[in-house]
Amino acid sequence: MKIRVIVPTTEDDHVTWEQEKFQEICRSDTQISTVGLQCAPDTVENDFDIALSLPSIIDNVKKAQAEGMDAVIIDCMSDLGVNECRQFADIPVMGPAEASMHYASLLSHSFAIVGVIAKDRVFYTRLARRFELVDRCVSLPVADVPIMEILESDDCTKLVNLCYEASIKAIEEDGAAAIVLGFAGMPDAVSSLQGRLKDSGYDIPVIDPTYATLKMAECLVDLDLVHYY
Amino acid sequence: MKIRVIVPTTEDDHVTWEQEKFQEICRSDTQISTVGLQCAPDTVENDFDIALSLPSIIDNVKKAQAEGMDAVIIDCMSDLGVNECRQFADIPVMGPAEASMHYASLLSHSFAIVGVIAKDRVFYTRLARRFELVDRCVSLPVADVPIMEILESDDCTKLVNLCYEASIKAIEEDGAAAIVLGFAGMPDAVSSLQGRLKDSGYDIPVIDPTYATLKMAECLVDLDLVHYY
Amino acid sequence: MKIRVIVPTTEDDHVTWEQEKFQEICRSDTQISTVGLQCAPDTVENDFDIALSLPSIIDNVKKAQAEGMDAVIIDCMSDLGVNECRQFADIPVMGPAEASMHYASLLSHSFAIVGVIAKDRVFYTRLARRFELVDRCVSLPVADVPIMEILESDDCTKLVNLCYEASIKAIEEDGAAAIVLGFAGMPDAVSSLQGRLKDSGYDIPVIDPTYATLKMAECLVDLDLVHYY
Amino acid sequence: MKIRVIVPTTEDDHVTWEQEKFQEICRSDTQISTVGLQCAPDTVENDFDIALSLPSIIDNVKKAQAEGMDAVIIDCMSDLGVNECRQFADIPVMGPAEASMHYASLLSHSFAIVGVIAKDRVFYTRLARRFELVDRCVSLPVADVPIMEILESDDCTKLVNLCYEASIKAIEEDGAAAIVLGFAGMPDAVSSLQGRLKDSGYDIPVIDPTYATLKMAECLVDLDLVHYY
Amino acid sequence: MKIRVIVPTTEDDHVTWEQEKFQEICRSDTQISTVGLQCAPDTVENDFDIALSLPSIIDNVKKAQAEGMDAVIIDCMSDLGVNECRQFADIPVMGPAEASMHYASLLSHSFAIVGVIAKDRVFYTRLARRFELVDRCVSLPVADVPIMEILESDDCTKLVNLCYEASIKAIEEDGAAAIVLGFAGMPDAVSSLQGRLKDSGYDIPVIDPTYATLKMAECLVDLDLVHYY
Amino acid sequence: MKIRVIVPTTEDDHVTWEQEKFQEICRSDTQISTVGLQCAPDTVENDFDIALSLPSIIDNVKKAQAEGMDAVIIDCMSDLGVNECRQFADIPVMGPAEASMHYASLLSHSFAIVGVIAKDRVFYTRLARRFELVDRCVSLPVADVPIMEILESDDCTKLVNLCYEASIKAIEEDGAAAIVLGFAGMPDAVSSLQGRLKDSGYDIPVIDPTYATLKMAECLVDLDLVHYY
Repeated sequence: MKIRVIVPTTEDDHVTWEQEKFQEICRSDTQISTVGLQCAPDTVENDFDIALSLPSIIDNVKKAQAEGMDAVIIDCMSDLGVNECRQFADIPVMGPAEASMHYASLLSHSFAIVGVIAKDRVFYTRLARRFELVDRCVSLPVADVPIMEILESDDCTKLVNLCYEASIKAIEEDGAAAIVLGFAGMPDAVSSLQGRLKDSGYDIPVIDPTYATLKMAECLVDLDLVHYY
Repeated sequence: MKIRVIVPTTEDDHVTWEQEKFQEICRSDTQISTVGLQCAPDTVENDFDIALSLPSIIDNVKKAQAEGMDAVIIDCMSDLGVNECRQFADIPVMGPAEASMHYASLLSHSFAIVGVIAKDRVFYTRLARRFELVDRCVSLPVADVPIMEILESDDCTKLVNLCYEASIKAIEEDGAAAIVLGFAGMPDAVSSLQGRLKDSGYDIPVIDPTYATLKMAECLVDLDLVHYY
Repeated sequence: MKIRVIVPTTEDDHVTWEQEKFQEICRSDTQISTVGLQCAPDTVENDFDIALSLPSIIDNVKKAQAEGMDAVIIDCMSDLGVNECRQFADIPVMGPAEASMHYASLLSHSFAIVGVIAKDRVFYTRLARRFELVDRCVSLPVADVPIMEILESDDCTKLVNLCYEASIKAIEEDGAAAIVLGFAGMPDAVSSLQGRLKDSGYDIPVIDPTYATLKMAECLVDLDLVHYY
Repeated sequence: MKIRVIVPTTEDDHVTWEQEKFQEICRSDTQISTVGLQCAPDTVENDFDIALSLPSIIDNVKKAQAEGMDAVIIDCMSDLGVNECRQFADIPVMGPAEASMHYASLLSHSFAIVGVIAKDRVFYTRLARRFELVDRCVSLPVADVPIMEILESDDCTKLVNLCYEASIKAIEEDGAAAIVLGFAGMPDAVSSLQGRLKDSGYDIPVIDPTYATLKMAECLVDLDLVHYY
Repeated sequence: MKIRVIVPTTEDDHVTWEQEKFQEICRSDTQISTVGLQCAPDTVENDFDIALSLPSIIDNVKKAQAEGMDAVIIDCMSDLGVNECRQFADIPVMGPAEASMHYASLLSHSFAIVGVIAKDRVFYTRLARRFELVDRCVSLPVADVPIMEILESDDCTKLVNLCYEASIKAIEEDGAAAIVLGFAGMPDAVSSLQGRLKDSGYDIPVIDPTYATLKMAECLVDLDLVHYY
Repeated sequence: MKIRVIVPTTEDDHVTWEQEKFQEICRSDTQISTVGLQCAPDTVENDFDIALSLPSIIDNVKKAQAEGMDAVIIDCMSDLGVNECRQFADIPVMGPAEASMHYASLLSHSFAIVGVIAKDRVFYTRLARRFELVDRCVSLPVADVPIMEILESDDCTKLVNLCYEASIKAIEEDGAAAIVLGFAGMPDAVSSLQGRLKDSGYDIPVIDPTYATLKMAECLVDLDLVHYY
């Protein structure tokens, strides 16, 4: 099984890092190939920046399909271009928001998405409405993570602390029973957060969106099912 | 009041035609300026083609704002780029789907959108969900309009016939009490359709999406209200 | 364009005050005529008092239509008589709750209505359900405004303070991104509130319900659209 | 237990007829007293006519409470005045639409309301939304009953025929599993309809709205529960 | 009228206690007969324990029907076996969750269910979704009641205190306007709680689920209505 | 990876048949072990029969966990016992209805479930409500499949014909864009149905519920995620 992961960035280091992460968790018979974009905004801070990458993403999905890939993942929490590419692609095109919200609905009666910045609340509300899962998403706490600072350090303690506090609030005040993270590719942070929540009496699933997307893509290829647009 | 209408096409004739149409219906103190795109797909058949125009649309909204416009309309039934541009724009950015569905909700307990081709049903369902108006939209009949053939002829009889049949079905079988048209800029067709429905005993509002959008934009400028993203 | 505003009060001073307010904000080609009721309860504290005014309101809408008005506004935040009058009227009949909730939905993903007294929460919940906009209305904070005291003084500082606190709560705790006010006709208060929210980092739309209703009525007359009942 | 039934009519014959009907089905320890209105429109064809009766209905509910009634029923399928009167009354005030839709939800996964005329669809949709039971109400078939003709004859065969056809359509096409009737006070018609549906293989509950309301009122008095407004 | 109450316990004392409680509140012409289970888990702490009792409950409902009962109540807040037994029974089979949530919806615009332990939130969310009343249920506060300790003592002061605090939170923070209790059969506690809430300015209905279920069952027998499955 | 499939039947032949089917489609590193029940009703025609099997199913899930399984599938379209077993199990417990409705939601904007008998409509409506996916499930056509006759013959032509007709109706009249089958374990029938729909112009996903469940279970084990109850 050959899965192409499109990372909406122009930075080669980031692409290599993602390649390694996905390689670690895919099945032994899955071949991962990760590509960045030739041209993308320097920082992806909002839908507007994201929009500028769309033609390049479409181009990459077309290429992936031409090269015989079995599925494509667009690795961006906004599910950027997923609907657009499903129109022409006859292989599964997957995004982390849709996959992770479906997993969270399957695993709990009510879930929270821990956002990185306050604007994410608007963002996730719109996505949850599009997927008709808005009634399951009971909380959108914001962890206010200084994401650049954290990515540069090797230490995810601060990240875990911030997400832990946001998660506790979502669980105790809003009744969340599963946590979807608003960032991805940090398995140590995920297991550390899940452990701390368990120690506090909340043994609930914590979902890393891109890993969940990879597994969902493998599933769909196994089942020979493709999206309808 | 100065309103810029962005028409997602490269064809000058189409832009001129739209300019005239908007001019006819805007308020006497509103100045309309219509622009096309420098670069756009030849035909806009799906979200994928539309996506390729996004950078050009974003560019035009930025330009409109720099030139002192009071509001921008992106004149495409998919509300292409509306959310993206609202992120950076501090003037109203309006799309016909959102404006017309809100008018239809205000004017009736249940509305239908008459689509041009079958794929439109997917499209409008997603938009209605995004606006959280999906429970008001009780019917998505498809008129199967040969839109190119009709645009080339001067005669809208066939168009009106097809839309009349689709509307009657929506009213009688699904309980629709207002009609949103899936195409725009044909005032004769609108009044002709409304007349025929009235003659059949259904005196209900028929909404031309782009005209409705223009009026909503004028309103927002009057009220000095801008979207929050 | 001739628009009749029905103010559900017997006090001439109040009617004159409303007339001046509407005159200030209507379009130059719009003629406003404001009327009170011959007979109304002394205070309008609940639906029960309001109900007693219904026959008089119906009478006034009939009169407005007979006198050639293009639209009627029933200027009461409960949308008193709006549905009833739409049954016989063939001109637009508009109420502030419906118009302002639709504007708020158009301008944000989630809105709050700042109520004057605690009972308003029941009231606005019922209205939001009737308009099927209840999922957009994420917060119903109560400002506990001593409305009589404020109307008698010329100073809206206290009013703005109370609404500011209620709005901040709605924004920070419930994710509201637009504010609908539960009272109307105080443009200075609106702009003052909007300014203070902006200074606190929340540059969001603040909607005065009756002004919004006037603009929506002008729109519908422009578009030659009438409600279906 | 003393229950007052307010019948929104000025016709004494109608009031007497209702008195007899209610007497037949109330519990042995329930005293029914039925009153008409001093002043009401000749025909109640729409909300507008109904609205004119509101002050008189409010007056009657106040009187019922002053006379020591334990509950009041406003016997009109539009639930006319129910919310308004609940504001001042400290005894249960019940309407047939709310009571019957709750029974239908309790007795089936999906119900239909068989309307008398086409306009009823608008009407029942609004009520179902207000009660937040709109997702349970899957069908609003219209029986097109010539209600005056039927009331004048002693024969309900035609009525049953029309309702049978409307019910079958609701069951087979829309999946309805309970029927709420849009008229009331005809026990023979109800049992005849239920029998014919059973003979056709559909052994489902058929609900007479006013009888259901009486029973719900008796319940609430037993439980000493009063509505919150 | 003969109503059988099935109490999912093997303890005779508990069954006798329930028999006396129901006897006190039923109508004079209603005969209550209460039965326990021959075999049940020692404690009913979750759905899993409950599931083990299902065959025994089904057996008891069959027996009740064979013995000529007019209705059956399964007296367990999880509505255990209600849907399953409705499939074969041709008499009403009632559970307290469904009955009490419908009463709460009828009596208020928004209600809370006061749970005994934290896990109840999951439980009640699922039930409210099954009844499609989840939008009415705005709060699921947990009283953390040491239920065994309270049942053993004769004093319900502690119980009322805990429920009072949970109810106040639901009213003031979430807008609840009716309270459904997550336990039953303690009329003194109910009236004491209602009194304390009233003293605090909240004169709202407090619903004892099993008493409400009894009244609803009496109603359905009166109306000769049986559930459709 | 070791997955236990519980088949709610006492017939060894059926269990062996299921074992072979699952073996064919699981991953090469997944070990399937299929078990039947020691005691079950002869025919499983409704929830009532199903309920009688619950204690035996619970027993089997406990056993599976004790024997070191990584996940359990309860292979019954009613998701029988899934919620109950999730309470005590610390491995994933999966049912076909939940898994297949989530796949259908992921793969299309609107799906249909093709039922075997008319009563299935009630059944699937309740399940879709429990999963909060009821707005995605736009159609519940019934194929009226003589399931015993078909299982006994080796020919699935009749089955495919009936499902094809039901699917076409769901697609053309209700806008379904994915089909969930109400039976399972017949891969030839699935691909034959998908082919015929494609030939008719509807290239949409057709989902076999139990195969989908197996893949979802494999996924969850890979991701080390367990349900929260």
